[in-house]
Amino acid sequence: MQATAQQIAAILGGTIEGDPNIIVYGPSKIEEGKEGTITFLANPKYEHYLYDTKADIVLLGRDIVLVKAVKPTLIRVENVYASLAILLEKFDSKISISSGISAMASVAANVKIGSNVSIDDFCIIKPNVTIGDNTKIHGQVFLGDNVKIGNNTTIMPGAKIYHNCIIGDHCIVHANVVIGSDGFGFAQDAEGNYLKIAQTGNVILENNVEIGSNTVIDRATMGSTIIQSGAKLDNLIQIAHNVNIGQNTVIAAQTGIAGSAKVGQKCMIGGQVGIIGHIKIADGTMIQAQSGISSTIEIENSKLYGSPAIEFGSYLKSYAYFKKLPELMTQLRQLQSQVDKLKSESIN
Amino acid sequence: MQATAQQIAAILGGTIEGDPNIIVYGPSKIEEGKEGTITFLANPKYEHYLYDTKADIVLLGRDIVLVKAVKPTLIRVENVYASLAILLEKFDSKISISSGISAMASVAANVKIGSNVSIDDFCIIKPNVTIGDNTKIHGQVFLGDNVKIGNNTTIMPGAKIYHNCIIGDHCIVHANVVIGSDGFGFAQDAEGNYLKIAQTGNVILENNVEIGSNTVIDRATMGSTIIQSGAKLDNLIQIAHNVNIGQNTVIAAQTGIAGSAKVGQKCMIGGQVGIIGHIKIADGTMIQAQSGISSTIEIENSKLYGSPAIEFGSYLKSYAYFKKLPELMTQLRQLQSQVDKLKSESIN
Amino acid sequence: MQATAQQIAAILGGTIEGDPNIIVYGPSKIEEGKEGTITFLANPKYEHYLYDTKADIVLLGRDIVLVKAVKPTLIRVENVYASLAILLEKFDSKISISSGISAMASVAANVKIGSNVSIDDFCIIKPNVTIGDNTKIHGQVFLGDNVKIGNNTTIMPGAKIYHNCIIGDHCIVHANVVIGSDGFGFAQDAEGNYLKIAQTGNVILENNVEIGSNTVIDRATMGSTIIQSGAKLDNLIQIAHNVNIGQNTVIAAQTGIAGSAKVGQKCMIGGQVGIIGHIKIADGTMIQAQSGISSTIEIENSKLYGSPAIEFGSYLKSYAYFKKLPELMTQLRQLQSQVDKLKSESIN
Repeated sequence: MQATAQQIAAILGGTIEGDPNIIVYGPSKIEEGKEGTITFLANPKYEHYLYDTKADIVLLGRDIVLVKAVKPTLIRVENVYASLAILLEKFDSKISISSGISAMASVAANVKIGSNVSIDDFCIIKPNVTIGDNTKIHGQVFLGDNVKIGNNTTIMPGAKIYHNCIIGDHCIVHANVVIGSDGFGFAQDAEGNYLKIAQTGNVILENNVEIGSNTVIDRATMGSTIIQSGAKLDNLIQIAHNVNIGQNTVIAAQTGIAGSAKVGQKCMIGGQVGIIGHIKIADGTMIQAQSGISSTIEIENSKLYGSPAIEFGSYLKSYAYFKKLPELMTQLRQLQSQVDKLKSESIN
Repeated sequence: MQATAQQIAAILGGTIEGDPNIIVYGPSKIEEGKEGTITFLANPKYEHYLYDTKADIVLLGRDIVLVKAVKPTLIRVENVYASLAILLEKFDSKISISSGISAMASVAANVKIGSNVSIDDFCIIKPNVTIGDNTKIHGQVFLGDNVKIGNNTTIMPGAKIYHNCIIGDHCIVHANVVIGSDGFGFAQDAEGNYLKIAQTGNVILENNVEIGSNTVIDRATMGSTIIQSGAKLDNLIQIAHNVNIGQNTVIAAQTGIAGSAKVGQKCMIGGQVGIIGHIKIADGTMIQAQSGISSTIEIENSKLYGSPAIEFGSYLKSYAYFKKLPELMTQLRQLQSQVDKLKSESIN
Repeated sequence: MQATAQQIAAILGGTIEGDPNIIVYGPSKIEEGKEGTITFLANPKYEHYLYDTKADIVLLGRDIVLVKAVKPTLIRVENVYASLAILLEKFDSKISISSGISAMASVAANVKIGSNVSIDDFCIIKPNVTIGDNTKIHGQVFLGDNVKIGNNTTIMPGAKIYHNCIIGDHCIVHANVVIGSDGFGFAQDAEGNYLKIAQTGNVILENNVEIGSNTVIDRATMGSTIIQSGAKLDNLIQIAHNVNIGQNTVIAAQTGIAGSAKVGQKCMIGGQVGIIGHIKIADGTMIQAQSGISSTIEIENSKLYGSPAIEFGSYLKSYAYFKKLPELMTQLRQLQSQVDKLKSESIN
């Protein structure tokens, strides 16, 4: 896409200062601003970049007063971040996909496909699958028997969805994700051999859920593993059988959540966090990256850190003293010798 | 599947209390019991759910005495867990697979395929591959040259197995697993550039091994990376070159084991554990989630925690004091001032 | 491959002691040396294996003096490791690939393909893709619109590369890797719902980069996520949007690097490390496995450990005292009672 300052200002309801006819071809970050791009200034601490940027257009707030003249054309807007989201959407490009069902896909006879659906090459769609309107199934995807996909959902290349799983509307499932593989469940026999316990349940993604690349969500032993509406999961995450993730909870990459854990709404979970099985995490809990949660969190909006995790500030304080343990030890030794001296004097 | 209480009791050798003709269509957890399902009560602490459950049949032990009347039909059995495993297997469903070799698979000419083998759409089977009897290769799987797969094994969609690797009998390899990719081996030249060291070995999975989705097992530099019989690996695990995992060892999700480490039999390794290279872990070792093992574990059946890991109970004790470090520091300061006071008095 | 001692000595410029006509069929480690193999002795601490090995040929340094007679034929060389790298390359085997473009691949009309390129079965190559000379695209790979791949590069089965990404020369991308999926970027609306921020950038791998199986590298929000020349990434790594990894940096498995972090040249990053977003890591930084880096590292060649990480030796010292915290606490208590006693005496 290309656009003039005038066209962009019209889309965003902004006011132009400079050349309305200047053309840009894409967005850039202000510290990397290149000719032919539009950039933005939202955080005042980056203002100094504004005077050096080579970008041709800069979006900025109506209230920012400049200390000197600038080269780029300015578009003043009310809310820079909201305008940026709209602008990036305009400049975004997508992977192209064949319209309709590719002749190089393997689609079972009794499949129910909505209107305006794309199924790309080398997909496998097993019997009794249902796909809603406007949904895009990119190449090399696998949908097992009885899978249901809602409307306006996108499944990216190579994702594998096992039988009986249900994906809602407006979801995005990224490349090579696995949904519905067997939960890790075994019973030990008398000789110590592990016997597989059949995993008879499924996975349900509600609406507006996004799942990052190579993440795995296991099917329930019985019932469903559930990712509630609006939850966003990053890449390489492990969600075990019978887990339940609340609405609008966000989880960063490489976090693992063990079986039957129930995570509340609007939680923010950092990367590489571990949560043990069969516990509950209250709504609004914030968990620092690399933490380990080993017991139920009852209090909403708690902020946690450590493995096992404790209150965020407490962890930082304890860790500050952890770093000083060698000094602390020296101090203790000195104190002991002072006391020993006092004791010997006291005896004398 | 659907079954009457009578049919289920016959399969499990159980005794009916209630309506023998009631029909169920699937299993459920007792706290989520829905009409048309069969549930179970094994742990007495969940007995209260029994009086409220909407499930139509409940499996329970012969010895449990009920405190009041219940609505569901009961099936009394000797061993609830063993009966449940049998029952779940009955209610389990599988992804359908074409019988024989799909016309949409790419199978090299000189491949040796046993009886009753399925190879589904868009699989690639390279020259000199051997596949045993009753084995199922689901769609979009890749088997490199000379790969050998045993009998009664299942490879789920999208798994990629590099050349020369060997998979035993009764194994399950889940979706998008990678087996036999190059170990991470480089030699640095004088300028600091890394030169690739060819990884000439392979991976061997013995019998009854299960590998979770998106797990990676690298081929050996020379010789074999080996996963011994009965070992079970969860999702997103990293097994580096020349690692050896003992019989009936279970490893939870996102654990990583570095090159040439040798893990014993019947170990239980939690999630997100890291084990460094070239060490040995004794049989029966239990490792708490998120721990880091940095040296050989000699003593069998050790229980470990921490990074680097120490004895489990010791870690918990030290961590309890870690949390109290700010208090401990205050105490130390107070003690110092008391001693200072004593010293000044002593001088006077 | 098979070779005589004489042929191998000729390749390596080595000197034979023993039977020049003995034939070997592959390499082995000295502690596992089998008949028909060639092994090596580089580290003197493994010399005892030399007297027992069943290998038929042993590579060893010119300067090593043997304490007794050995059975295998010896090939004396100047530099054992350099000779081994050459030797392993000779014994290495590769997955076979169809020459040219497979009839079972889906290749868009307007694709630019160099000379001597292989594209194997069930690959999808979208419009405007460019592939350089001598490059191998293995089966079931996905290349989105406008992707550029350089010369002499290998993409292994099942890798998925989103639109607009650029891969250099002499790169290796392993199985089921995902390159260019959307960065994890959302803006929250007034009701707490997350709105997707379009990720308009791409990923650039420069030359001689190797990416391990199931690793994910997200595309930039704007601009590029960059992996510089010679960097080597192991399996199951997470690289977030707008990250920049310096030349010849190596990263072990399961490490995660958050958005916009900039990692220097020649860094060595252990497994399961976490690096938070928007920080810089100086050239030559060494980070111990499982560490968490939470702030910019200014000093080159630092060695770090812990979460949050501190100087390597300091962490080990503090951790040594952490393990002694229960003793330290006892000591503190005893000291307090001694002081109390002294105080009571002083009052009397």
